[in-house]
Amino acid sequence: MTAIAPNTVQEAPSSQAWVQTVEIPAPTLEDNTAFAERLCKQLEKPMGGRKISLDMEALRSLPAILRTGEGAMECTLFGQGAEAVLIDVRPLGKRPRPGLAVDLGTTRVVLRLVDMVTGQHLGEVSFDNPQGQVGPDILARIHYAGTAGGLEELQGLITQSITQEAAALAQSCGLSKKDILCVAVAGNTAMTHLLLGADPHWMIREPYTPMINSPGFLKCADLGLDFAKAARVYVFPNVGSYFGGDLLAGILSSNMYCKEEVSILVDVGTNAEVVVGNRDWLMACAGAAGPALEGGVTAMGMLAGPGAIEKVRIDPITRDFTFQTIGGGKPVGICGSGVIDLAAQLFLAGMIDLRGKLLPSACQGRLTEQDEILALVIVPASQSGNGHDLLFSQVDLDSLVRSKAAMYTILRTLTNTVGLAFSDLAEFNIAGTFGSYIDPVSAITIGMIPDLPLSRYKALGNTSLEGATQILLHRQAVDYVKDIREKITYMELNVNQEFMNRFSAAKFIPHTNPALFPSVVIPR
Amino acid sequence: MTAIAPNTVQEAPSSQAWVQTVEIPAPTLEDNTAFAERLCKQLEKPMGGRKISLDMEALRSLPAILRTGEGAMECTLFGQGAEAVLIDVRPLGKRPRPGLAVDLGTTRVVLRLVDMVTGQHLGEVSFDNPQGQVGPDILARIHYAGTAGGLEELQGLITQSITQEAAALAQSCGLSKKDILCVAVAGNTAMTHLLLGADPHWMIREPYTPMINSPGFLKCADLGLDFAKAARVYVFPNVGSYFGGDLLAGILSSNMYCKEEVSILVDVGTNAEVVVGNRDWLMACAGAAGPALEGGVTAMGMLAGPGAIEKVRIDPITRDFTFQTIGGGKPVGICGSGVIDLAAQLFLAGMIDLRGKLLPSACQGRLTEQDEILALVIVPASQSGNGHDLLFSQVDLDSLVRSKAAMYTILRTLTNTVGLAFSDLAEFNIAGTFGSYIDPVSAITIGMIPDLPLSRYKALGNTSLEGATQILLHRQAVDYVKDIREKITYMELNVNQEFMNRFSAAKFIPHTNPALFPSVVIPR
Repeated sequence: MTAIAPNTVQEAPSSQAWVQTVEIPAPTLEDNTAFAERLCKQLEKPMGGRKISLDMEALRSLPAILRTGEGAMECTLFGQGAEAVLIDVRPLGKRPRPGLAVDLGTTRVVLRLVDMVTGQHLGEVSFDNPQGQVGPDILARIHYAGTAGGLEELQGLITQSITQEAAALAQSCGLSKKDILCVAVAGNTAMTHLLLGADPHWMIREPYTPMINSPGFLKCADLGLDFAKAARVYVFPNVGSYFGGDLLAGILSSNMYCKEEVSILVDVGTNAEVVVGNRDWLMACAGAAGPALEGGVTAMGMLAGPGAIEKVRIDPITRDFTFQTIGGGKPVGICGSGVIDLAAQLFLAGMIDLRGKLLPSACQGRLTEQDEILALVIVPASQSGNGHDLLFSQVDLDSLVRSKAAMYTILRTLTNTVGLAFSDLAEFNIAGTFGSYIDPVSAITIGMIPDLPLSRYKALGNTSLEGATQILLHRQAVDYVKDIREKITYMELNVNQEFMNRFSAAKFIPHTNPALFPSVVIPR
Repeated sequence: MTAIAPNTVQEAPSSQAWVQTVEIPAPTLEDNTAFAERLCKQLEKPMGGRKISLDMEALRSLPAILRTGEGAMECTLFGQGAEAVLIDVRPLGKRPRPGLAVDLGTTRVVLRLVDMVTGQHLGEVSFDNPQGQVGPDILARIHYAGTAGGLEELQGLITQSITQEAAALAQSCGLSKKDILCVAVAGNTAMTHLLLGADPHWMIREPYTPMINSPGFLKCADLGLDFAKAARVYVFPNVGSYFGGDLLAGILSSNMYCKEEVSILVDVGTNAEVVVGNRDWLMACAGAAGPALEGGVTAMGMLAGPGAIEKVRIDPITRDFTFQTIGGGKPVGICGSGVIDLAAQLFLAGMIDLRGKLLPSACQGRLTEQDEILALVIVPASQSGNGHDLLFSQVDLDSLVRSKAAMYTILRTLTNTVGLAFSDLAEFNIAGTFGSYIDPVSAITIGMIPDLPLSRYKALGNTSLEGATQILLHRQAVDYVKDIREKITYMELNVNQEFMNRFSAAKFIPHTNPALFPSVVIPR
């Protein structure tokens, strides 16, 4: 297995692209094999020896090209393993051949249109997953899917919105949705099931069995996605109910699966998903880290968006707060990365103690009570963008400490299981938009992630979207995913006494054992 | 390669059927592989090690079965080579699982509904190919397909009529068209192209190249055939523009491809198609034999149907004619097999000479003239079913002699090419409805087919329909067709001086060299 160099994402090497230009040799009386078979044969070599089959739509557009008398034609294929389907054939032209990468999130869906010939990103759009109308979280939607017509409704909601948003995106690029020939979708196992119309009923019941693991390549039309008539969609496989295609896409885009050194990949969220390994082995686990890390608990919490506090600095002497908000306007709330920054700064300014408790003496002038719970006024109403005090309570802090302790314990347990120390990790990859905004120094300060040299931390951004993009641009990527899936060992996180001991020790800031965090200067 | 014993057509051995009953082992915490993959894995062994993929429709019907709590379910698959698609899954039941075999003829289309579990024939129906409205013969339709919208119109005509007629057939069996999951179609290369919507333009232009050779398995819906949502259709491949899937179906149903001895298969028609070979090799050719053999030239010629003369006896002493008509009513015309019988009887009664010329002295009382051409009154108006004289003219006789001579020459040339004498042929198989009606003694008498022991002649009936039926009942049949196709050598019939010499020698009754036909007693 060789690596997909990160820079190739922007410029697909033609030898690995799904779009190939070939010429059909003219038939003779000695060899009058049919045109379809001549074309498929001709494509075998540029497609790396794959067996080529033919969609009827491609067959129907072949005669018009043959009539032009020009032998060369541009062919678009899509498929897996030793096989590929020829889905489009046309005369040589310069129009982009768009493919659609989909990050199918529970909350947000992101679409990216790429030129499958040049690898160029043509445009992106994101929108709320419309299934949110039915149920905000996975569990609510799985229950809804069990009601009469529920599954079909949920499937219809997502396929229609992807179609509509992709159509608008294509139009903004001077294209039509009917130009889209290939689609790649990465989502968690539940979202993938709802896209496929596969019943997720058993996913949440012991022994937590998905309906399908590897959907592979399907006709878009069979799912209700309305693109080119012959368009195919690749749906990332899952490893199990709690380890979905989004994570396989993440591993694909991290490149950790093709390196000799061991790296780690962390997807931070309500559920923390962690993978450790290299080109020879991969070990994964997932555990509840708590919504605090997403800014989802505190009353002032919000998704990253205009007015969200993303950075906080507290002067350790004057204890004055300065903020950086997304968009630069007055603050209206705080996003996940802001929460971690805030906690780290409160700790460094001596306003909270080792257990994350507010220190009234140090918080003077900012303390208030809400429902008999101590809270810190982060931004007074007079300075906020919505005319309200922005409060961060002791409950928020406790929740954050539990979440960061869970995250650290999961990381520690997984690396321990494979007999490694954190220092053995060549790279510490953080996936997700959250990972891009997070300040590793703050995350280390509160003891959420290990105290490694900053150079080892890498924010990968939207790895689901990136992984889906790679599928559209590199034929081998599909095989890599299969390989990753087969290589991965999923470790059921055993919440035993040892785990609980580790968890308790991690509930201090940064940790009961400060020697584990030498870079953190603990305030007196 | 092992033979498909002819009797297995009536009772599909479950080990070779496309319908299989399996049980999914319940998932556990140790093995919670998804249900779809559990089912596919379970099917691998009964399906002979094939890799199983899953249609989304099958996936959607799986949950309801899982909820019944009964592990066993009935699965219908269809596919080729090392692969098969699971297209339907349902609880165990006794309803027949119908498959549709289609003989896609240029003139007539025959549908047969079979139970894919038991092999039972449920019903049959035949109808005129509705493309006949557009053009009676292949050439006219190919030209029409080249006009704007012509190809789509021709495709629509045939797919709609197959859908409608199959729906009526299914209904007459207490079923619905939506019950039909698998379809197999055998037709000549042109009819197959028009069914697929594949442009036949280049088929009739040097170097006579089809658009596609091996369409394989397609979704019925993609062709406009409206059966079960996930229904698949297998379309027989062709060897070239002049050697179609109907002939491969014929070879399949003849079993000649799995015998050690060499046999011959003849499909008699406007174009005579001939295959000679055994399990190791197959050699084929086709040549114009003339429409006379189909009863298509004479004014009294008609398709086999009520009132058609199918047998003729002429008393050699009194020269009285007796007839057997289809249905037993008064004669209104003569079908192909009747024409051969008539010519043989005229020859044996001394009413025509060695060159096929009417002998006025022997034809007294029956001779007349039509447009200055000598003609024989076969049935006087007073005895015919339509109040007209039924006439057989010298032109009809000449045409028949040319046709039978062409047929014999083609047979002779092909066997000669492979270095065999007619006597080396273990079986002489005659395909087609025509083959079932023909009297081999009469055909030998006029020198149309070689003078072999009658036990070697075998009328196979509708071999296209039979071959298509085998595809529905025996999984291996698909592989046999592929094997036959790869094994076959198509010999371009070279109409050179040697051929013309042989043809001239065969234009006598039975032949210039009567020693070739020792069983024929030539009248003095």
